[in-house]
Amino acid sequence: MNLTTGASVPELLALDNIRTQLIRLEDTIIFSLIERAQFARNKRIYEAGAFEAEMGSQEPLLNWFIRETESFHAKARRYTSPDEHPFTPRELLPTPVLVPMDFPPLLHVPAASHPSVNVNDSILDFYVRHIVPGITKDKDDGNYGSSATRDVEVLQALSRRIHFGMFVSESKFQSAPADFIPHILANPPNKDALAALITKPAVEARLLARLANKAKVYGCEMDADGHVIEDTATRIDIKAVVALYHDWVIPLTKEVEVDYLVHRLDEVPQSQIDEWMGTA
Amino acid sequence: MNLTTGASVPELLALDNIRTQLIRLEDTIIFSLIERAQFARNKRIYEAGAFEAEMGSQEPLLNWFIRETESFHAKARRYTSPDEHPFTPRELLPTPVLVPMDFPPLLHVPAASHPSVNVNDSILDFYVRHIVPGITKDKDDGNYGSSATRDVEVLQALSRRIHFGMFVSESKFQSAPADFIPHILANPPNKDALAALITKPAVEARLLARLANKAKVYGCEMDADGHVIEDTATRIDIKAVVALYHDWVIPLTKEVEVDYLVHRLDEVPQSQIDEWMGTA
Repeated sequence: MNLTTGASVPELLALDNIRTQLIRLEDTIIFSLIERAQFARNKRIYEAGAFEAEMGSQEPLLNWFIRETESFHAKARRYTSPDEHPFTPRELLPTPVLVPMDFPPLLHVPAASHPSVNVNDSILDFYVRHIVPGITKDKDDGNYGSSATRDVEVLQALSRRIHFGMFVSESKFQSAPADFIPHILANPPNKDALAALITKPAVEARLLARLANKAKVYGCEMDADGHVIEDTATRIDIKAVVALYHDWVIPLTKEVEVDYLVHRLDEVPQSQIDEWMGTA
Repeated sequence: MNLTTGASVPELLALDNIRTQLIRLEDTIIFSLIERAQFARNKRIYEAGAFEAEMGSQEPLLNWFIRETESFHAKARRYTSPDEHPFTPRELLPTPVLVPMDFPPLLHVPAASHPSVNVNDSILDFYVRHIVPGITKDKDDGNYGSSATRDVEVLQALSRRIHFGMFVSESKFQSAPADFIPHILANPPNKDALAALITKPAVEARLLARLANKAKVYGCEMDADGHVIEDTATRIDIKAVVALYHDWVIPLTKEVEVDYLVHRLDEVPQSQIDEWMGTA
């Protein structure tokens, strides 16, 4: 999110603004998947102990790449931004060298809860188990570093996309808090009702159709003059890109959205809740 | 270059194989330029001293990003590959944690000369002074980390593309050494003649046309359903991409190619030269 452009909180949380960013992230995700797909699966990258002799640990090579990349990005204050979530536990990351920026308070972050919802473990798991096999050939071409570098880029883009759900939730909550509050205050909270309030099947269907079209454009073959050869998309499996969103990105985003809503009233004064409910 | 797929040296040095890799790199370069262009120019990234209070040095932020990224990649043995050249002086980079792979001896590397031709200083200079201004809006949106991360990706791809010229030179030299040898042995070496031997104006013209078409496809606007809106390419300036290659990538590649050829006979026994010349 362009959090630093001087836009006001209502502007930043406007659903149109959020949607624009989510749509732009689709391109980043497809680009990075195409970049990864030029290399073989190279499954050693993901196996515990495959590089134990050299690394001195059982850690999979990819996890080393993630941690090293995030360690530097932490120094460059990446994870002080409310739309960025590291895969590495925050306590293992260095403190920022650059002074963190002042971000407007866009999200409700209760002091007692975790700093924020974080589904990165799930993202890493489905990426390695389902996405990489779906977009690569089951071979080993030895390009471990090149592949793992692209993996980190895909993972960071997916994480950003999925955790953006918190902004979606906040935006929708603010536009009609009284719709959400009874389901949040139910004991236990009514997660199905909360999910129903933020789910727009027509928007999801359109998203999947758009993704397929984008993957087709970006993954096309071109001749030596750069002209698109129609009906080729051999550089990325279009079905795999659509399945990525259908099976993983959309459901996990919903999990993030609902989890955020469940904690939306934590530490909120009763007087504020009464005001939202019109019972003040 | 997929140096590790078990292909033989003649296969790896076949001009068709090299061209395929160069064409694939065009897509990587355009993708990464589009990713950079979504952010503002953010010229503070490139200014010496802009972050001095925090970093404790005059170093531009981008240079810090390059050095930190390359330090990790060095540990992951990136710069032991003959097609990879760091921007950071090699002596400042850590030694590889991963055991370097055995690469086939594709290039002629005289022991007395620098490890290899390296024009990265020129690449960084033209990128900051000409390319970034050509693809971004002259604004500051505060997204310094996101921008600098993309800068590093563009720079690494450009460096790989330009230094690939050494493989082109070696391939062409091997196919007709007697054509090159007199110009290499001239005192001083006849660089113009060497350049003429490796220059194919028709190939260059086709490359520039292909690039424009690719930038048009990848930089297109799409509607909410992912359909291309014809004759839009607002995400990247097509002319800037073509100029990047015309003004910088092609001339610098030629510099790398000629410089490689000038040193191609260093430490080569006279008997080998005689054999190539048919005078043995």
